[in-house]
Amino acid sequence: MAYHLICVQCDRTHDSSRYRLYCEGCNGLLDAQYDTPATVEARVDAGAAGTARYLPTLPINDPANLVTMGEGNTPIVPLPRIGHSLDVPGLSAKMEYFNPTGSFKDRGNVIQVSVLKDTGVTKVADATGGNAGHSFAAYCARAGIEFHGFANETTYDSRKLHAIAMHGAQVHNVGSGRAARNEGARQYAQDAGILHMNYGQNIYFIEGLKTMAYEIAQQMDPLPDHVIVPIGNGSIYQGLWKGFNEMVEDGRVARMPKLHGAQTEETQPVVAAFEGRAWTPGPGDATSKANGIGVVNPPRPSVLVQAARGSGGSFVTVSEGSLLRWQRLLAEMEGIIVEPTSAIVLGALENLKAKGAIQPGETALLPLTGFGLKEPIPGY
Amino acid sequence: MAYHLICVQCDRTHDSSRYRLYCEGCNGLLDAQYDTPATVEARVDAGAAGTARYLPTLPINDPANLVTMGEGNTPIVPLPRIGHSLDVPGLSAKMEYFNPTGSFKDRGNVIQVSVLKDTGVTKVADATGGNAGHSFAAYCARAGIEFHGFANETTYDSRKLHAIAMHGAQVHNVGSGRAARNEGARQYAQDAGILHMNYGQNIYFIEGLKTMAYEIAQQMDPLPDHVIVPIGNGSIYQGLWKGFNEMVEDGRVARMPKLHGAQTEETQPVVAAFEGRAWTPGPGDATSKANGIGVVNPPRPSVLVQAARGSGGSFVTVSEGSLLRWQRLLAEMEGIIVEPTSAIVLGALENLKAKGAIQPGETALLPLTGFGLKEPIPGY
Repeated sequence: MAYHLICVQCDRTHDSSRYRLYCEGCNGLLDAQYDTPATVEARVDAGAAGTARYLPTLPINDPANLVTMGEGNTPIVPLPRIGHSLDVPGLSAKMEYFNPTGSFKDRGNVIQVSVLKDTGVTKVADATGGNAGHSFAAYCARAGIEFHGFANETTYDSRKLHAIAMHGAQVHNVGSGRAARNEGARQYAQDAGILHMNYGQNIYFIEGLKTMAYEIAQQMDPLPDHVIVPIGNGSIYQGLWKGFNEMVEDGRVARMPKLHGAQTEETQPVVAAFEGRAWTPGPGDATSKANGIGVVNPPRPSVLVQAARGSGGSFVTVSEGSLLRWQRLLAEMEGIIVEPTSAIVLGALENLKAKGAIQPGETALLPLTGFGLKEPIPGY
Repeated sequence: MAYHLICVQCDRTHDSSRYRLYCEGCNGLLDAQYDTPATVEARVDAGAAGTARYLPTLPINDPANLVTMGEGNTPIVPLPRIGHSLDVPGLSAKMEYFNPTGSFKDRGNVIQVSVLKDTGVTKVADATGGNAGHSFAAYCARAGIEFHGFANETTYDSRKLHAIAMHGAQVHNVGSGRAARNEGARQYAQDAGILHMNYGQNIYFIEGLKTMAYEIAQQMDPLPDHVIVPIGNGSIYQGLWKGFNEMVEDGRVARMPKLHGAQTEETQPVVAAFEGRAWTPGPGDATSKANGIGVVNPPRPSVLVQAARGSGGSFVTVSEGSLLRWQRLLAEMEGIIVEPTSAIVLGALENLKAKGAIQPGETALLPLTGFGLKEPIPGY
């Protein structure tokens, strides 16, 4: 619905008629602000289903531009055996991989691509290769938007790259690593005079993730005491923070859950920022199997740290051995196979319980973000 | 809820306290009959969610034995561009791969495994290797049931086999083909004194598929004129037929959709039976990429033919070229990647439209049964 964009650094406002990444004044990142009043009635379209239900606080001016295909509305499922083993009996999972492309990224891309349509963009370039790129390619196909995706020559993840190509995206191979993909996309967009979408930097994707919070509030009463998510760019985390804040504001919920984020030991910029210490990445690309969160330079670390303080949550690291062990235990004990990136939240749960951040009797919810069969299963 | 099993050949009844495949008298296949009265109120537990909602007409005596993990409740999504191209403007898909293991098989296995628990079975052997085996292994893991799965040495489908092993199933490799897998499981079960489940023959799996019909009736008013599904053993088709019949009986729906089934040219026993002609499989195993429906000897062909006559539907073949072309077009035009086995329904739609079985202005619904990234994408 009607909204404008506001610079997070200098507060300058910008209209929403075109796609914007940065402030025109100071080049700062942007946030979305809505003209919608802070009442439940104004913020929820109770007669609509799926993503359309939440259009009044999503950054799409014309609802006809919503490019939806059944994303969201994922069930919450108890994890009784793991809960018992960790002495967190009220443990459950939100099955975020029950989505069109098998990952939570569809919640961001339904909005991402609808914004492109809403602002008249028909051709776009961006880095690609993982779940975000696969999801984006799928929604572009549905919307009829031409997508130039920049991938590494030898990708870690050929299944997803095949899917991206099958959706009709133009895949351009560039050197190795995230930096090369981003630079390839930027350069191509500049030369071809098309949009460099830069999904990790923009606010639209994050806004789409608010729907996860809205659903949790509909599904769970009382809310869980803790929610734990993987942290790469931090889009789920920020989406939950924004969504729960809107609901505290309009009175739908009394207090928000403590929001926690998990990073690998190898790539822990947000944990370091939270703990107030310096961190520099090792040489070469990250090698963790949790490849979805190997982001060494996330765009909004201060927002993440502020949100952790505000919700009473935290950021913790998880070892490679722990996340791979939990991927296997989740399959064996609860019947659920997720990607290593997703399994990290179980390692974080174990660590948070051990250090007393999760108290006896408190409940926890784990969004399970990516379907395990989108990647080779470690050990095979 | 309370039910008994009745022989489809000799009408002999059997109690439901233990797992049964065949009639004790004549060795015929069994059907489930419920003590539930034929009223909507008795057949739907309106206060429950997910599969539990339909427990009054599912073959589980003690609801505490339901082993659920969020299966079902899948959205219906329009396919506007393909609908336009085939002149079937009211075309939509039921997103059956939004399920715990990425396929519709979870609807059958939630019941299959709950029946095992309900009848006290703790160890089981069966053929495995595809979506059904993956799904079954997942539910067995959740229920704590020991599963011995019999797979081919060189499986067509290593991703699913890795998942089956990751769920903790004991995978036994046997020779080549479906027959070898079934015989391996039968022999092992006999030697070890455990249950040979024989999922293709039993009625429990089919009963679980009724929930797809119940949901369609909740989601679509009016119902679609046509529903088209892939046919291997024919479990979806029979589940829809039984579910819609129950709803006609209790007054929830006025008439059922025409139910159509699709088979490959290579493996078309049900199409042949429907057309009243003989068919014998070629030498060796089927080679179609639609490997989920390469069943040369389905257990209940006469029930399928009777259901097609009863609903006004039909069975049609689809060429290999057509199903692979439609797999690609679905990805390019609508943003959805399914397995070749699932894409066959689009080829069937095209054929049915061409031969006039689908009239101008009629609507059609396509259950999309399996997530495309569970198998290699053809051409890569």
